[in-house]
Amino acid sequence: MTDTSKRLVLKFGGTSMGGPVRIAHSASIVAAEVRNARQVAVVVSAISGETDRLLTLAGELGGGLGEVETDTVLAAGEQVSAALMALALKREGLKARALLSWQLPIEVDGPPGGARITGINPALLQACVREGVIPVVAGYQGVTSEGRLATLGRGGTDLTAAAVAAALKAECDIYTDVDGVFTTDPRIVPEARRVARISHEEMLELAAMGAKVLQTRSVEYAKAKGVVLRVKSSFLDPGVSEGTEVVPAADIAERRVVSGVAYARDQARLSVYGLDPDSGQAADIFSALADAEVGVDMIVQARARSGEAVNLEFSVERKDLKRALSSVETEISRFSGTSLAHETGLAKVSVVGTGLRGRADVARTLYDVLRGHEIAVRMVATSEVKISALVEADLLEHAVRALHAAYGLDQA
Amino acid sequence: MTDTSKRLVLKFGGTSMGGPVRIAHSASIVAAEVRNARQVAVVVSAISGETDRLLTLAGELGGGLGEVETDTVLAAGEQVSAALMALALKREGLKARALLSWQLPIEVDGPPGGARITGINPALLQACVREGVIPVVAGYQGVTSEGRLATLGRGGTDLTAAAVAAALKAECDIYTDVDGVFTTDPRIVPEARRVARISHEEMLELAAMGAKVLQTRSVEYAKAKGVVLRVKSSFLDPGVSEGTEVVPAADIAERRVVSGVAYARDQARLSVYGLDPDSGQAADIFSALADAEVGVDMIVQARARSGEAVNLEFSVERKDLKRALSSVETEISRFSGTSLAHETGLAKVSVVGTGLRGRADVARTLYDVLRGHEIAVRMVATSEVKISALVEADLLEHAVRALHAAYGLDQA
Repeated sequence: MTDTSKRLVLKFGGTSMGGPVRIAHSASIVAAEVRNARQVAVVVSAISGETDRLLTLAGELGGGLGEVETDTVLAAGEQVSAALMALALKREGLKARALLSWQLPIEVDGPPGGARITGINPALLQACVREGVIPVVAGYQGVTSEGRLATLGRGGTDLTAAAVAAALKAECDIYTDVDGVFTTDPRIVPEARRVARISHEEMLELAAMGAKVLQTRSVEYAKAKGVVLRVKSSFLDPGVSEGTEVVPAADIAERRVVSGVAYARDQARLSVYGLDPDSGQAADIFSALADAEVGVDMIVQARARSGEAVNLEFSVERKDLKRALSSVETEISRFSGTSLAHETGLAKVSVVGTGLRGRADVARTLYDVLRGHEIAVRMVATSEVKISALVEADLLEHAVRALHAAYGLDQA
Repeated sequence: MTDTSKRLVLKFGGTSMGGPVRIAHSASIVAAEVRNARQVAVVVSAISGETDRLLTLAGELGGGLGEVETDTVLAAGEQVSAALMALALKREGLKARALLSWQLPIEVDGPPGGARITGINPALLQACVREGVIPVVAGYQGVTSEGRLATLGRGGTDLTAAAVAAALKAECDIYTDVDGVFTTDPRIVPEARRVARISHEEMLELAAMGAKVLQTRSVEYAKAKGVVLRVKSSFLDPGVSEGTEVVPAADIAERRVVSGVAYARDQARLSVYGLDPDSGQAADIFSALADAEVGVDMIVQARARSGEAVNLEFSVERKDLKRALSSVETEISRFSGTSLAHETGLAKVSVVGTGLRGRADVARTLYDVLRGHEIAVRMVATSEVKISALVEADLLEHAVRALHAAYGLDQA
């Protein structure tokens, strides 16, 4: 074992900090890790409901998200819970101290309410750990170059945890109210099983699913810094939760190809017909969509007839459809011979796994299974770690169950 | 008018910050001062009830007052209200920003929960004021030389306000839920009137009364720095509250000698008989009381018989009596020929005014009035600004009413 493997960051989310009783239980989990001769640091969210309460207070005085004063209000939530966790750890007989972002400091940049971490000074963290004092870092926030507090957006404490883990060269356990990541949503497929180990890339795809167990940017940060994450439940006794380990793809030697089936509801498809393949019209359309802040997900470009105009199809979230249609209509009105169509009532089902690109057998199974269940495929897109299909919304749960079984995910 | 007279610090206490509606009203008072071409800064307490809520939370995890982590919890209350006030001021069309103690910084020293301000860097405050941005300072806290947050004790936001006013060479309006300081407690004497102008010394005596409108240390700080304070009500429309002005004694030219009648309930008297006047025994007794953290109030030493032993009498608060008796008993057990007696069921009534020492007429009126109402005087002590008498608790309100009338305080 290297030195690094002895260091552990434990992150506790809002439900794990849901009042004094839950904080005390989370502290007992930390104490168990210390008894395992671990050097630990802790990162905490605000008490569950507190961020919403503070946001409402600010809102009543005209302070919305993205306003610098609102961020100063919101940042108080984690300040309180960090100090409460330090108190709980002291009651466990441990040494601990709350560490606020300006005390380290954790440097951030970007807009209030959506700042990103640009640096973290590890000196104070390391000094604490060396002296046997458990640092309890207030998550979700940092200090700007102007010396003001700024928050990292919803789920930002996961990002703080990843950054603290990177600064301490530690692994990072993310405690939440579920025991890891599942092969799919257990509400749809009761046979869904916990995934023991996946890559950061796969986690990014599975995290986009209903149960948002990890903030996307935190996984991206962990991936970039090579931080091993573990998603665990703080609602089990210390040491009981096995959770899901998220590791660099290179560390996954032998494994099943498909690790889970993700889904997203409320999707819409746009189809643009008759684009000139040599004019850069497609780029203009995506540029207009970006200006309208529409997130484009799946993109398929198919040549309509050899040597002639091309058709472009892509999916957006239902809530963005109106903005998307408006901006595409404005754009293609400049191009003669083009037309626009759209379809709603769709959902996306995704098969997630490592190294899927080029795995024709995985793609074939997808097509076979969906056709076998008479589920029409409206669009397909692939990436390194997933194959996604757009299907009728009514058939989504049917598709999830069929694919989950077909890839053998319900078997241990 | 000097530059200084254009600068004003407005402090809003918990009731003036009692939720969004009250915060908005307090912001309208600030806006009115800005329209008067005032350069202003604001200092705020936590929303009423918030400090108690946070203290309870910390207490449930073993964090009492005087614990460094508890202070980090408590400090969040003013962080929230400072940012909320900044939002409310922006909605008034003003420029404003929350300023936290570590951002200035406000340097403090001493124990958590009872720190004192040792320095305040005026640079950021002055920069804000110059640029037309209203600084809204989080009260009740500062940052220690170790870079940790520490609170100033109950009412500490008054002290922050006095310090900010001193740093800006400004006057300081303390907004609370009463319209100034009264000649006595209106609950006892309905004819009590608002005092328009008193010295810091008198304020210190009147503030010790039931209605604690100003924290004692803030008045001492203002006295030392020559800061003019005004106690005003934030529950009246902007500009309506006349309040009480607290100024250096030298600035009070012509005035009535007696400005108010203060009182304190739950007093006890201790009498030590037979001390050797040449042995330093009295000093030993007070030293023992100080070690036991007993606050001694009135002290009277009378020679029992010429050339022989002396008797020492002093008053303490009823809640300290047990500790006082125990420490005095231990101490005098070393001195032969001494004895100890005590009396409870007492209260203190004080006549407060500027330059009372040597004003025999004021003292004579006190004796005359109390004797005239058949109120026995158990002890009398005088200072520069007050004459206090210990009386039977049952007769306290009767004494307050009689003295208030005798000194003409119910007349405009």
